[in-house]
Amino acid sequence: MSGGSVVIVGLGPGNPQQITPQAQAAIARATDLVGYAPYVRRVEAGAEVVRHISDNREEISRASHALELALAGRHVAVVSGGDAGVFGMASAVFEAVENGPDIWRSLDIQVIPGVSAVLAAAARLGAPLGGDFCVISLSDTLKPWPLVLERLRLAAQAGFVIALYNPRSQARPWQLGAAFEHLRKTMGGAEPVAFARAIGRPDEAVRLSTIAQADAQWADMSTLVLVGCAATRLVTRADGQEPWLYTARKVEEAH
Amino acid sequence: MSGGSVVIVGLGPGNPQQITPQAQAAIARATDLVGYAPYVRRVEAGAEVVRHISDNREEISRASHALELALAGRHVAVVSGGDAGVFGMASAVFEAVENGPDIWRSLDIQVIPGVSAVLAAAARLGAPLGGDFCVISLSDTLKPWPLVLERLRLAAQAGFVIALYNPRSQARPWQLGAAFEHLRKTMGGAEPVAFARAIGRPDEAVRLSTIAQADAQWADMSTLVLVGCAATRLVTRADGQEPWLYTARKVEEAH
Repeated sequence: MSGGSVVIVGLGPGNPQQITPQAQAAIARATDLVGYAPYVRRVEAGAEVVRHISDNREEISRASHALELALAGRHVAVVSGGDAGVFGMASAVFEAVENGPDIWRSLDIQVIPGVSAVLAAAARLGAPLGGDFCVISLSDTLKPWPLVLERLRLAAQAGFVIALYNPRSQARPWQLGAAFEHLRKTMGGAEPVAFARAIGRPDEAVRLSTIAQADAQWADMSTLVLVGCAATRLVTRADGQEPWLYTARKVEEAH
Repeated sequence: MSGGSVVIVGLGPGNPQQITPQAQAAIARATDLVGYAPYVRRVEAGAEVVRHISDNREEISRASHALELALAGRHVAVVSGGDAGVFGMASAVFEAVENGPDIWRSLDIQVIPGVSAVLAAAARLGAPLGGDFCVISLSDTLKPWPLVLERLRLAAQAGFVIALYNPRSQARPWQLGAAFEHLRKTMGGAEPVAFARAIGRPDEAVRLSTIAQADAQWADMSTLVLVGCAATRLVTRADGQEPWLYTARKVEEAH
């Protein structure tokens, strides 16, 4: 054994107060930080800590690099936004291990959970995840687009609240609009839709609409989109503030 | 305005190192703690803080009590395990507001996100949530059992990894076995199933199986059950330790 290690850490949605002490301690033990540039830059660490910055979409080479460093005895923290297990780096690291040299299977590898973007967005809005829900990445980089549409249809049919990660990017400008169109075929129209942008960061913004009226232009790559179900409701407030959004826990019958 | 407030706080899965500083700060401001006994007891607070303990399944009366206290000027923290928005107290509070006196709509109500049980269990196992996933409560206290079965069927058909909350209790001993039977009709049989019990607590335990062989007896009310999909795999380790469980990010085609 080399004595090195890999810890995969979620940094939370962006507000430093939403990073757990466990995650902070794991990062404090690291000799090396590995990750996509914006996440590595977010970490406060001493000058002796080596920062290995990589571009987006290079998850497997980044994971392999972290594993090589650990094999050489380094203590590596691979950092993701939100929770590292939800469309973050955790899966990429185990994929690299599965397909890499056997010696990687003897490494000390741990995942530290974090507050995911969907949980932070839900808390900011009220309680939209009050019932059963699903989490879908709208990116078709790693799965075929017809499968994304099929999953959306089945999720709406099941009556899940649907959280959409990666709704829109410059390279994928049309998917979210197509997803809304597809959902309208199955849904009633009045189900609330929330656009939660950069929650926990200084530029956070929220926009509420319905599935009938939701416009994909309101999302960007920092937005999490929550599509409500029949049990999702707005609670108006006395003072003209933005309403609370919540999903009732009780479902009377199949819809 | 009374000047009181309600903050709904998730305490994380049980490991104090998994409570965010934001949640700690919210609790530290509270004059009153409201919640199900095991969660209220978990909070360290000064003797001047009033603890209002209630039984399980009394969510709406508990929520109403918290709102009344806030209206009287108290600063109330309603505490849940995990994340308060995922089968926790957040939805119950907004339901109480919606159905309560109008004056409650002028109250200062906030939700603080936390590390949910499903994220902690996933991190402990590896990266089983690496793809799209859904979260379903198996309790039929608040929804009809046929709807639970239908949601399971649609989730399996969609290829979601399925996280099952409330899989089993003394009052509901048979649901999990029936759920496994139902899933076997749709699934191949080799999909991994993980039983993650009391993750983050001293008595934590993990058991890995497959949907063909999973036995509902292995779960209790402290267990989160994760049912993998076709892309969920075990990665064996060199030293005979329990394998890592992860879901590959890439899905080649519809299944």
